[in-house]
Amino acid sequence: MANSKYEYVKKFEMEDKLPACNWIVVRIDGHKFHRFSDDHDFDKPNDENALNLMNSCAVSMVEQFSDIVFAYGVSDEYSFIWKETSQFYDRRASKILSLSVSYFTSMYVMKWKDFFPHKDLKDPPCFDGRIVLYPRVKIVRDYLSWRQVDCHINNQYNTCFWMLVKSGKSNKDAQERLKGTLAKDKNELLFRQFGINYDKLPDIFKKGSCVYKDTVEETVKPDDGGNPVRRQRRRVIVGHFNIIEDWFWNEHPNILKED
Amino acid sequence: MANSKYEYVKKFEMEDKLPACNWIVVRIDGHKFHRFSDDHDFDKPNDENALNLMNSCAVSMVEQFSDIVFAYGVSDEYSFIWKETSQFYDRRASKILSLSVSYFTSMYVMKWKDFFPHKDLKDPPCFDGRIVLYPRVKIVRDYLSWRQVDCHINNQYNTCFWMLVKSGKSNKDAQERLKGTLAKDKNELLFRQFGINYDKLPDIFKKGSCVYKDTVEETVKPDDGGNPVRRQRRRVIVGHFNIIEDWFWNEHPNILKED
Amino acid sequence: MANSKYEYVKKFEMEDKLPACNWIVVRIDGHKFHRFSDDHDFDKPNDENALNLMNSCAVSMVEQFSDIVFAYGVSDEYSFIWKETSQFYDRRASKILSLSVSYFTSMYVMKWKDFFPHKDLKDPPCFDGRIVLYPRVKIVRDYLSWRQVDCHINNQYNTCFWMLVKSGKSNKDAQERLKGTLAKDKNELLFRQFGINYDKLPDIFKKGSCVYKDTVEETVKPDDGGNPVRRQRRRVIVGHFNIIEDWFWNEHPNILKED
Amino acid sequence: MANSKYEYVKKFEMEDKLPACNWIVVRIDGHKFHRFSDDHDFDKPNDENALNLMNSCAVSMVEQFSDIVFAYGVSDEYSFIWKETSQFYDRRASKILSLSVSYFTSMYVMKWKDFFPHKDLKDPPCFDGRIVLYPRVKIVRDYLSWRQVDCHINNQYNTCFWMLVKSGKSNKDAQERLKGTLAKDKNELLFRQFGINYDKLPDIFKKGSCVYKDTVEETVKPDDGGNPVRRQRRRVIVGHFNIIEDWFWNEHPNILKED
Repeated sequence: MANSKYEYVKKFEMEDKLPACNWIVVRIDGHKFHRFSDDHDFDKPNDENALNLMNSCAVSMVEQFSDIVFAYGVSDEYSFIWKETSQFYDRRASKILSLSVSYFTSMYVMKWKDFFPHKDLKDPPCFDGRIVLYPRVKIVRDYLSWRQVDCHINNQYNTCFWMLVKSGKSNKDAQERLKGTLAKDKNELLFRQFGINYDKLPDIFKKGSCVYKDTVEETVKPDDGGNPVRRQRRRVIVGHFNIIEDWFWNEHPNILKED
Repeated sequence: MANSKYEYVKKFEMEDKLPACNWIVVRIDGHKFHRFSDDHDFDKPNDENALNLMNSCAVSMVEQFSDIVFAYGVSDEYSFIWKETSQFYDRRASKILSLSVSYFTSMYVMKWKDFFPHKDLKDPPCFDGRIVLYPRVKIVRDYLSWRQVDCHINNQYNTCFWMLVKSGKSNKDAQERLKGTLAKDKNELLFRQFGINYDKLPDIFKKGSCVYKDTVEETVKPDDGGNPVRRQRRRVIVGHFNIIEDWFWNEHPNILKED
Repeated sequence: MANSKYEYVKKFEMEDKLPACNWIVVRIDGHKFHRFSDDHDFDKPNDENALNLMNSCAVSMVEQFSDIVFAYGVSDEYSFIWKETSQFYDRRASKILSLSVSYFTSMYVMKWKDFFPHKDLKDPPCFDGRIVLYPRVKIVRDYLSWRQVDCHINNQYNTCFWMLVKSGKSNKDAQERLKGTLAKDKNELLFRQFGINYDKLPDIFKKGSCVYKDTVEETVKPDDGGNPVRRQRRRVIVGHFNIIEDWFWNEHPNILKED
Repeated sequence: MANSKYEYVKKFEMEDKLPACNWIVVRIDGHKFHRFSDDHDFDKPNDENALNLMNSCAVSMVEQFSDIVFAYGVSDEYSFIWKETSQFYDRRASKILSLSVSYFTSMYVMKWKDFFPHKDLKDPPCFDGRIVLYPRVKIVRDYLSWRQVDCHINNQYNTCFWMLVKSGKSNKDAQERLKGTLAKDKNELLFRQFGINYDKLPDIFKKGSCVYKDTVEETVKPDDGGNPVRRQRRRVIVGHFNIIEDWFWNEHPNILKED
């Protein structure tokens, strides 16, 4: 075969199979999205269209890759939890990582116009990604709690920061004002100075977004006798739940279940 | 800090720095592009617009990531050679892989309309990627030779196959006709049956595409005395060269140079 | 500093920390021990002195490395289970592997004379080793069951094989005689032809050896009133238990306990 | 097969093949040898018997593993360079590391009495090991230079330190005396205070030890006509050369030769 002389170069490809019995977390992160959000005039501290675009891409991911059991997103980042028994591409890390990032990016560009009909993309949106393995359900839940606490802390800070800036403070002065403040100080600042009750802000800002498949029951049509016919269907849900406490997980015991 | 209780989950992130003094090859591959090319009615065996779109994305890559010294593409695959001394993101494999794949995908969707103004994207184009390390220039060249020989073999086969199919044969009959044929048999088949001189087919089909930065000299404008003023400029070149033989590399000694 | 010019070579050392929350199994295997056992006239199919030497080395290992919670040995192989939370050398794989293998080898040579007072070491005994990670207690137990089933299958086969050889058959004929036989056929062969009741063979041959730390209570001395004073002490136990069934693990719930 | 139920645990074994075209350096290091050398009353700063024992083990290594092309030792450490094309155990890292460390340890214990006939081993000598890959000859040479510079710096310091201690200073005072001194200060201290010309100390102390295979020519016996018959033979050499400069490598061009 004409190519055999060079085929030895394939030997340099290293195996990268992920170990079995580990939940695979693919975390995707907007690359230089600080600048990207400036260039595209995103609302501050949260742009609802931009968040909904992220969520819509995550829904497509969950539909496309059947081994993703849960996704959690906040700001320009999204974490996808692949089930621990996944055999997708034989658990090869580079396949799982690159296809996840590529598919997400592709959806982001394709869906842009649905969420920003009056804005053109000025720069190519770009995401980096990483894989982290978690050997136990408990640790996966702690991972998700870590991201949700982070969402809360950042959102509270950013809400204060941007209210101060919009009220006329310089970025630097706003930072100075917030230095060392505790959660309750920030809530009080929002309430006293801007009349904002933090607890009443939309959950999508405060809690981030959860995406997962669920079984829903729906009435299809009446049967011949006029009785409603109901059927079960798997569909992808987007919600903004507290995933630190047990409630959500008790309600959805099948999402994270050890084999 | 409120988040400290969960932050232990970061310990599960594994270091993935690539070893120094190795050329980093990122090979990107269209995912399920057989179907993608059917869905979008690509010309067979080669769709010039599709190839030019791939090349245009590769040009953007070379402009975007300054450590890419050379790229070679054929069909729906592209290999990007990062210089052996690259310190991009501290040589972290997941950063290099995910950003390469994401940026390429983003460009592909954004530029689609430039190359297919009358076709809408029906499905999200998606690429997988992998990283391979090569410790010597000689092996990088053998890697590129491997891809170019592959280009040649596939193109010759596909040209025959599609001519047979277009002439009325079934896919199966066309395969049967080509089974066991040598290169010269295929050339003869093309010439006798279809009047095609394989050697005269466009180089972009036969040799694939090379993308790299080069220093070009250009005349800018006459100076006050009317003499032409020339200056040197780095620009990205797309060409279709034989990269198996030494000629190209002798002409461009700086592209692959060991430190 | 005079050495700084060359110190860049340290950059080539790759990190090899094992992921957290995984039980670390170090399995050590005699290298070319078929020949080693011939050279030193080991009894066939089992040499009790050789097994006791292996066990004695394993006891030293358990005493030396406090993170080893259990060890299981059969023939010339030994598996050491390091607790999942071990921070020994920051969980660096090469440290854990090399120190385990080196210490075991050192003990083997040093203790040789205790077990073979009339035989000199003719060749250096040598062991290879490998690390395998198990993320759940259940899988660690399945690993140990795998080794103990292997012990049983090999021992039954070898007992038959060597009885046949000692009775005058050639190696080849003995193999031929055993080809395709089931466990019960082998037991019957031993009983009918050699009067051996397999079940009555020593447990060390049939079940291999378990080494672990246990808390034992011992009577030290009478106190002033003449009453016996008892105290608890941690000591290393060697036993030959069934570790496939639950009994042993129910009796020793602390050995494999998830954090 | 009775064992199949548990055999899935083998899936957890990860592939660890080292990439091709890289020189494999296995560096072995005495574990807690500071204490070991105290316990066995090694001469300070250098114990010639202990060094010769290390060298003798290295010679055995080079004889045992034919892919080791060069070894360099200093104090209680030894580096073994495996040729870049080695296919030993399919380049599996754990095999190469564990067998190297185990064989070296085994020889160390077995040969102890040859070098210390009047001392018993009180503790098991133990070595850790690591693998580092170097993709170019130049870097292998820089690695060896790094170790030899280290040998020189440490030996000069230790020679001063122990002369001061033997002359009555406390360890702490000796350290204090040497703090911040340059190489030439140390040489002067040795000469003025102790009459020692550092340059005249044995090369084994100053330069460490090199072990490699060489072709030597020897006269065997006279032939029938009385003429001496000479033949070539491969044998293992121990020497104490400057391996930083080119001389040694020019004399032995075959030791480190890229494929």
